[in-house]
Amino acid sequence: MTKAKIGVLGASGYTGSELVRLLLAHPRADIALLTADRKAGQSMRDVFPQFAPYDLPNLVSIDGLAFGALRLDLIFCALPHATTQQVIKRVLADAPSTKIVDLSADFRLDDPAAYARWYGHEHHAPELQKEAVYGLVEIYRREIKAARLVANPGCYTTTALLPLIPLLAAEAIDPDEIVIDAKSGMTGAGRSAKENMLFSEVSEGFHAYGVGRHRHMAELDQELSKAAGRDVIVSFTPHLVPMNRGILATIYVRGLAGKAAEDLHGILDRAYAEEAFAHVLPFGEVPQTRHVRGSNMAFIGVAKDRAPGRAIIVSALDNLVKGASGQAVQNMNLLLGFPEAMGLEQVALFP
Amino acid sequence: MTKAKIGVLGASGYTGSELVRLLLAHPRADIALLTADRKAGQSMRDVFPQFAPYDLPNLVSIDGLAFGALRLDLIFCALPHATTQQVIKRVLADAPSTKIVDLSADFRLDDPAAYARWYGHEHHAPELQKEAVYGLVEIYRREIKAARLVANPGCYTTTALLPLIPLLAAEAIDPDEIVIDAKSGMTGAGRSAKENMLFSEVSEGFHAYGVGRHRHMAELDQELSKAAGRDVIVSFTPHLVPMNRGILATIYVRGLAGKAAEDLHGILDRAYAEEAFAHVLPFGEVPQTRHVRGSNMAFIGVAKDRAPGRAIIVSALDNLVKGASGQAVQNMNLLLGFPEAMGLEQVALFP
Amino acid sequence: MTKAKIGVLGASGYTGSELVRLLLAHPRADIALLTADRKAGQSMRDVFPQFAPYDLPNLVSIDGLAFGALRLDLIFCALPHATTQQVIKRVLADAPSTKIVDLSADFRLDDPAAYARWYGHEHHAPELQKEAVYGLVEIYRREIKAARLVANPGCYTTTALLPLIPLLAAEAIDPDEIVIDAKSGMTGAGRSAKENMLFSEVSEGFHAYGVGRHRHMAELDQELSKAAGRDVIVSFTPHLVPMNRGILATIYVRGLAGKAAEDLHGILDRAYAEEAFAHVLPFGEVPQTRHVRGSNMAFIGVAKDRAPGRAIIVSALDNLVKGASGQAVQNMNLLLGFPEAMGLEQVALFP
Amino acid sequence: MTKAKIGVLGASGYTGSELVRLLLAHPRADIALLTADRKAGQSMRDVFPQFAPYDLPNLVSIDGLAFGALRLDLIFCALPHATTQQVIKRVLADAPSTKIVDLSADFRLDDPAAYARWYGHEHHAPELQKEAVYGLVEIYRREIKAARLVANPGCYTTTALLPLIPLLAAEAIDPDEIVIDAKSGMTGAGRSAKENMLFSEVSEGFHAYGVGRHRHMAELDQELSKAAGRDVIVSFTPHLVPMNRGILATIYVRGLAGKAAEDLHGILDRAYAEEAFAHVLPFGEVPQTRHVRGSNMAFIGVAKDRAPGRAIIVSALDNLVKGASGQAVQNMNLLLGFPEAMGLEQVALFP
Repeated sequence: MTKAKIGVLGASGYTGSELVRLLLAHPRADIALLTADRKAGQSMRDVFPQFAPYDLPNLVSIDGLAFGALRLDLIFCALPHATTQQVIKRVLADAPSTKIVDLSADFRLDDPAAYARWYGHEHHAPELQKEAVYGLVEIYRREIKAARLVANPGCYTTTALLPLIPLLAAEAIDPDEIVIDAKSGMTGAGRSAKENMLFSEVSEGFHAYGVGRHRHMAELDQELSKAAGRDVIVSFTPHLVPMNRGILATIYVRGLAGKAAEDLHGILDRAYAEEAFAHVLPFGEVPQTRHVRGSNMAFIGVAKDRAPGRAIIVSALDNLVKGASGQAVQNMNLLLGFPEAMGLEQVALFP
Repeated sequence: MTKAKIGVLGASGYTGSELVRLLLAHPRADIALLTADRKAGQSMRDVFPQFAPYDLPNLVSIDGLAFGALRLDLIFCALPHATTQQVIKRVLADAPSTKIVDLSADFRLDDPAAYARWYGHEHHAPELQKEAVYGLVEIYRREIKAARLVANPGCYTTTALLPLIPLLAAEAIDPDEIVIDAKSGMTGAGRSAKENMLFSEVSEGFHAYGVGRHRHMAELDQELSKAAGRDVIVSFTPHLVPMNRGILATIYVRGLAGKAAEDLHGILDRAYAEEAFAHVLPFGEVPQTRHVRGSNMAFIGVAKDRAPGRAIIVSALDNLVKGASGQAVQNMNLLLGFPEAMGLEQVALFP
Repeated sequence: MTKAKIGVLGASGYTGSELVRLLLAHPRADIALLTADRKAGQSMRDVFPQFAPYDLPNLVSIDGLAFGALRLDLIFCALPHATTQQVIKRVLADAPSTKIVDLSADFRLDDPAAYARWYGHEHHAPELQKEAVYGLVEIYRREIKAARLVANPGCYTTTALLPLIPLLAAEAIDPDEIVIDAKSGMTGAGRSAKENMLFSEVSEGFHAYGVGRHRHMAELDQELSKAAGRDVIVSFTPHLVPMNRGILATIYVRGLAGKAAEDLHGILDRAYAEEAFAHVLPFGEVPQTRHVRGSNMAFIGVAKDRAPGRAIIVSALDNLVKGASGQAVQNMNLLLGFPEAMGLEQVALFP
Repeated sequence: MTKAKIGVLGASGYTGSELVRLLLAHPRADIALLTADRKAGQSMRDVFPQFAPYDLPNLVSIDGLAFGALRLDLIFCALPHATTQQVIKRVLADAPSTKIVDLSADFRLDDPAAYARWYGHEHHAPELQKEAVYGLVEIYRREIKAARLVANPGCYTTTALLPLIPLLAAEAIDPDEIVIDAKSGMTGAGRSAKENMLFSEVSEGFHAYGVGRHRHMAELDQELSKAAGRDVIVSFTPHLVPMNRGILATIYVRGLAGKAAEDLHGILDRAYAEEAFAHVLPFGEVPQTRHVRGSNMAFIGVAKDRAPGRAIIVSALDNLVKGASGQAVQNMNLLLGFPEAMGLEQVALFP
């Protein structure tokens, strides 16, 4: 079985190392390129000692790489916002037949005006922004298969969209009364050395951040509005949990047209009945992040609220897997014609 | 300065040990009695080694104690639900002039019917239930000073009531659209040996529990309805955070009569300007549980939501201090005529 | 490719669930039986929600099972000490051709007298005790392949033996001056509901236990004495770390016959050069538990001590994988003639 | 009661904030100066939100301060190594009657040659180095009372010295066979933003660092050699525990002249019988870090080892309190003639 030649740009961060972990277990992937600008010249085991027993290419700088000559089948781009636009433009100019799964936020917004509003500057690759497909597999599977550039969704967004899109599409909930209270583990904040991410600043405590103004909202607005067929603005508050992995969103909704919590559960249960990586729990049960840790699963639960006509939905996934690198590999599988679940079968690691 | 003779019933649990910690630092308290039925005969250092260097009475069984003869000035009752009613009835029959601060939920509900509905049986001491005063100091200070039996509020309830009562009383927010998303550290679940509270079941993960049906709701309903002057039913979901101490509530509200988030902040800021233990942060800032750890402080923040007319309130306290034993000592101070903050001046322990 | 029919006795504990996790990823294993006496009748997802998306047999009671009729190829026994002896005796009487990997301590000691001394009673199956092979794969690979009953080593023991056996066998270190300071995550203590294993008792703290008298010492004594060809008694202290998984042993040794730390490193490096699951780091580097989490790897480092002639060895593994269920599957592979690493290739999950 | 005017140089780090926490509770201390060069101009609540409810001087830069004019009674110096020497020289030139407690390592070594060897450069204030008194209160109480400049001991060192000095002084243990295996919480590493101190790098794992070559060894060598009356070189390995506070040292020793573990316990028990902050547990019991958290207590336990003639000593304290700022305040109390325990009576915060 021939293997696909895969590159990972930005391999020294957590989504990068998670891609390497998953690709090492993938029967059709050959890791041919690993880049990390500030750590160029180092081996992967220098920056992530868990890879010590494996043969992997050394980290190189992205500068001066001739992407055309590398003949990569697919590149994962795990670079910071803004840099990404420049790099991908260059890669696709050099190597137009290489497929790309981008893990940054750069190509997630369809609307250049929305991009400029949320990010404070014009997009550097507006043509590609138009071309990019939003990589939420369970919703856009068909479009992804035909794409060249996939914008892998954000972790908060994936957690909230999986339960909300089918409910809005079915006009089963009120788009004006959605509250998303989201909680994330610390890996969601990346690996850069910042005081507020030190162990002693984070452990034994809990807090909200970005209250009223988090950038993930742009993506939420876009996809929820598409699903509802009208503008949707949700209340969304992210929080940080003293744990490494996991996102859990507690979502408060009001049913429309007499839809009770049980009805909402039924809609989701049917929507995801055939999905490998979206699992709806029995009515009234809610998920825990620890039970999806390290796996590509999203677990979704629906319960009745006391307040009449209202329901509480809880959605949980591993932010580095289904919320980032796992979904990216799922996208790779679609782009390269592999079985969608290939390399993603790992059962969650609990405890 | 004479000291008051104090008893702690149920000293082998976390609220019990926290009372002992605070009372050891209280200049007017003399710990005269410590009970713990299953651990009777042991010393306090056997069950909580941090007390090894201190002189404390040994743990005794509550059975057979002659409360009249003990001549205690005040008893803290940190016993499980239901047992409490029987014990307090007996104590007050024996020693009618002993004051009581009860940390259980047994005397928090005014309405015997509400009690029976939420707890599944008739109250065993309905006369005392009528007499008991709800011990949320910042709201009921005057009533507490005149009381004999104080029902110390629950930790979730205190966290939510402190910001919500002044806003409802001022008719500044819509009572029908309140969502309280609450997160608690593990000590809130007590010290009993249950599988789902083991370290390996709890660390590195996050989950909701009691979705749609938590008993703290009865207390919330009661106090919020009083404040609003009408029935209030909120959406409330408790979650468990892998940390020992701390509760944080993220509260989503809609302003009434054109009240913006800034107006809500102003109301709270004025309401608590003179309070020692309720601190309102500057507008737009939100608190973290770690910054109140070990202290009797409640920190409250108010921020603007994106959704027009809506605000997000974040309230944080230490569930074992302001959410339990600290507030209990604050109540003791009122009941015994001591300065309200006596023994409670400890600055938060961070990191 | 035909699959082997596998049973797991005691599937509701952590080593049980870890076996199920690994077996689900094993291409030649078919999970045919899961038992759990106290949870008989429940599904695996009831006791471990991470298995919700998978088809697994329900938990049954071990009583009344006709092991002969079940025609299992191999049974993993993850039952408590003492019970195990009775059960395995019965299984092998019913189904003499079924292979067994026992994860308890019951068959680890060769010497019935040592067993009686450490466990306080005679062994219930002395014949089997004689037959059992100690399942430390890197040392006893040949014997295991020919065995019917394998006693899977303890987690502390595996961590310490992997570096010490080759050094003692080479007479490179002084058997009379070995200090093993070991630290374990909480899953090593199992899943039973005990007060001292509650999250709030364990997090944000560190302590030693069983100082001077831990049962793992019997196994250490036995295997180290065999390697040294004389009696060895080490100083060994286990500690609990507020983490789920991982064991790290810091081992203080004195070189013999002029052997320096570098020489000791060379011995280990050569001993494990061809091993898939024992990895010796470059001289002077020491491992972290997090870099082997979830994998079957043992990482070993050797550094020079300041004190002349002395070296410090650090050994780390995941107590549930190489320290228990992973090594058990490695043993299964040997017993059933599968490639030794089959189903165990998972890269460590970090962060 | 007049208050002493106190300054804290370097108030934006963890030992700085801990000093502020303790001084706010000290009846004779008036916090008159707080410096933090990189955060000059900010308020204390900006860098440590737990101080929001308290009146404190704003942070200022140390440059340009006229220490003579400030008329401070005592300065705590919590600055980085090397900077400290320059600053203290300047302070004492300006304000010769101001007392100083230095929390850095700069003045802990008596011997300029040892200093140069461990730190790689000549000492910048050799005269003061000679004058400085080593501030391990339980050992050097008398000298401290007469001092002007006290070098507050390191956290690892305090943990190990408290049990070892009396035993070496009594010639009860072999100075050539001491192994100190030490484990620290993360606050010991300070507040600077480094990748290897991020939450996700540290939680759910355990590791050793500085194996064979940690700077605390210089201090250990010096003080243990003094106590033994001859050169002592110990094996010492520090480790990092995923917790905020606490140090625990497991110390392996061999008794001399027939001294058994019980005899060692007796020596320590008598040595510390009258001490407020060094508490020896009953023979055979060992301490946990969590039971001294936030307090100025050191807990010490002694147990018998299996290996004949050997004992295991476990010593635990809070690295930020008895291991740093608490001991510094204890030193302040001695220097200013206050009762030694003043402001340090806080009971440990557990859980």
